[in-house]
Amino acid sequence: MTARSHMDTVVVKYGGSSLAGLDQIRAVARQVAGRHRAGQRIVVVVSARGDTTDDLLGLAAQLGVTGGDRELDQLLATGETASAATLSMALQQLDVPAVSLTGPQCGILGTGKHGAAIIVAVDTERVSAVLQSGHVVVTAGFQCINANGDTVTLGRGGSDTTAVAIAAELRVPLCEIYTDVLGVYTADPRIVGGARLLPSVDIGVMSEMSFAGAKVMHSRAVELAAMYGVRIRVAHASKPGGGTVIGSQNGEEMLEASTAVMAVVHDPDVARVTLRVRAQPLDVLQALARSSLPVDMADLREGSDGESAFQMTVRRSDTGAVRESLRETVDRGRGTLDVDASVGKLSVIGTGLLSRPEYAARMVSALATADIPARSITSSQSRISVTVPDSELVRAVGVLHDEFGLESTVGDTVNQV
Amino acid sequence: MTARSHMDTVVVKYGGSSLAGLDQIRAVARQVAGRHRAGQRIVVVVSARGDTTDDLLGLAAQLGVTGGDRELDQLLATGETASAATLSMALQQLDVPAVSLTGPQCGILGTGKHGAAIIVAVDTERVSAVLQSGHVVVTAGFQCINANGDTVTLGRGGSDTTAVAIAAELRVPLCEIYTDVLGVYTADPRIVGGARLLPSVDIGVMSEMSFAGAKVMHSRAVELAAMYGVRIRVAHASKPGGGTVIGSQNGEEMLEASTAVMAVVHDPDVARVTLRVRAQPLDVLQALARSSLPVDMADLREGSDGESAFQMTVRRSDTGAVRESLRETVDRGRGTLDVDASVGKLSVIGTGLLSRPEYAARMVSALATADIPARSITSSQSRISVTVPDSELVRAVGVLHDEFGLESTVGDTVNQV
Repeated sequence: MTARSHMDTVVVKYGGSSLAGLDQIRAVARQVAGRHRAGQRIVVVVSARGDTTDDLLGLAAQLGVTGGDRELDQLLATGETASAATLSMALQQLDVPAVSLTGPQCGILGTGKHGAAIIVAVDTERVSAVLQSGHVVVTAGFQCINANGDTVTLGRGGSDTTAVAIAAELRVPLCEIYTDVLGVYTADPRIVGGARLLPSVDIGVMSEMSFAGAKVMHSRAVELAAMYGVRIRVAHASKPGGGTVIGSQNGEEMLEASTAVMAVVHDPDVARVTLRVRAQPLDVLQALARSSLPVDMADLREGSDGESAFQMTVRRSDTGAVRESLRETVDRGRGTLDVDASVGKLSVIGTGLLSRPEYAARMVSALATADIPARSITSSQSRISVTVPDSELVRAVGVLHDEFGLESTVGDTVNQV
Repeated sequence: MTARSHMDTVVVKYGGSSLAGLDQIRAVARQVAGRHRAGQRIVVVVSARGDTTDDLLGLAAQLGVTGGDRELDQLLATGETASAATLSMALQQLDVPAVSLTGPQCGILGTGKHGAAIIVAVDTERVSAVLQSGHVVVTAGFQCINANGDTVTLGRGGSDTTAVAIAAELRVPLCEIYTDVLGVYTADPRIVGGARLLPSVDIGVMSEMSFAGAKVMHSRAVELAAMYGVRIRVAHASKPGGGTVIGSQNGEEMLEASTAVMAVVHDPDVARVTLRVRAQPLDVLQALARSSLPVDMADLREGSDGESAFQMTVRRSDTGAVRESLRETVDRGRGTLDVDASVGKLSVIGTGLLSRPEYAARMVSALATADIPARSITSSQSRISVTVPDSELVRAVGVLHDEFGLESTVGDTVNQV
């Protein structure tokens, strides 16, 4: 951690869709060059260009590698490294001194599984020295170095996390994330025509939105920002001034909010798992923890006959791994494991939701009126989630967006970008 | 340097054309797998796949970067890194444990300019540990790490040098280089139909051939092999048993050679530079040395009036850099610098050439008979070179191949591969 706050330093992340073509790279370089000439010290974090990551994943799949593999990480990391070097060249062509750094060169230290690593620290010595010498730093996101000297990746969207980690370590108060959407909306604007761009979102609310399935920000990046007090601006690469600022909002701002429900988030990548087994709840929970797979909407009921019923949602792509991790528990407890992959998850996100119990009732009632059956309700202060048939998921988002008046609060509706 | 010779360890390099398609990668993986199962410890060094390097150079050129640049090295190195990870996955798919290493991870330590670095040492600790654990090591060639922690590349063909350096440091007696030609020929088989594959070549002769323009091996790789007593087998990737063995041959073998001329080598990437200037020869030589550009056929004549005439050949692509490095000397000495880019270099390679002066005479005479003017003759014990008009270069190779009877010595002529 550096000793003082670099108030003149900015950390800016550009997503792969903003760097796909050479013209786009040149446009990003012009933006960065303008800020460099205005006297800012700039760390740019980049994702792999365009479809690079998908192409590399396709290559690996042809060789039987589908994820969580050391060699896949070596391969995938080349995408961000090439992207960083390319943007650095484009900056130099504008006479802006620039140095690209891989994650390892940038001191991004990580731990954990390949494809799902966690940043443990950022050794900013080199970044600080390069900034000090008047260069723009262009860092390859998504990748870090582990204790073996191997490259490990953070999983998809991990470049956001890289940017926030660098901002946190450099004590830069605002991290700017430029992407292909205009910011954070009250619902996915591709689904709800009247979805409204939120000029600001509390970071706790954003964390729930990301976890509930909002794609605009990687949930770990949001959690890291919350932990280190970094504010995030999410904006479209071509409109750097606008977008949504994500930060901790004080109580006063919260009281002024006209409604406690701020957004509707949907997630189609969901399967509901139901486990009935004679086992201690602890055994089931430990088996799940060992799998390191994200689980949501967990619900446990112990029956009087010693049989427990567990219900939870998992990522649809994780169902095989979940089955595998629970196989022994199921076999030993002579139980059953059912997977329903025909559901989607629908969440309303806000603050103090449990303090006003009418929200859960309104949510289920509005869906019922629209003939959409809601199941597996779970709620917390910041989120109420239900599962609905996935064929009804998109319609359900619109129903709830209307029910909670998210469009009508202000007039500036924004169409799909 | 490891303490003992790894007699059971092999170092094998595959060129980019042998790894271009997924089927080729699988074929290489099967070869390596067979040797792994036979009990060999294997270090595979790979180049970037197919046209990757050219594609990346094209991208960089569009951003105004043409060579010798830190960012270009960051970009280019992704080619070999991806290639290594991909081959490693293909090996794992055959149930062969494999670990890919970048040049830096592999402990390839280098120094010097970007795009033209020199390997100073190989820290084999990690390679040895990975081999010891029963894994195949797949190393990205062409790249090393410098004292700043930056990636620097060795220049084109540098993967050969990586392979020889690892073999030298591991004390592996034979380094196998698999490429898209069958081995070393008496002349380029694409030009001379009767060119003959040489089953073995003295390493000193090979060094001259590489420097004179033979593309089959990188000249620095040959020099490194000579320095550390590593023998090299150059063969086609699909015919691993054959090819040419390059090594130091003892006097007896040399005496048995029926002719002292072993090959004709041509190099079209040549320009002749003529410098007339009032300057100390030392000034000119120092200016050239500072440029670090390869110069051949240097000839210096001091005139009685204090004006010196220098003549030399340089790579045609280097002429701009040569002009730049000599500009000050030319200006100060009120001299002139002429560049003739319409020539090619033609060399006969052998042993003891100066001991038998008739070879130079036969060379020039045969060319004259064929109406090909030869200029700028330079000779050493192992090479006689002339420049000829580049329009006559290909024909001249055939004339000399005939003159020195390189085809007729044995019957096994090999057609173009």
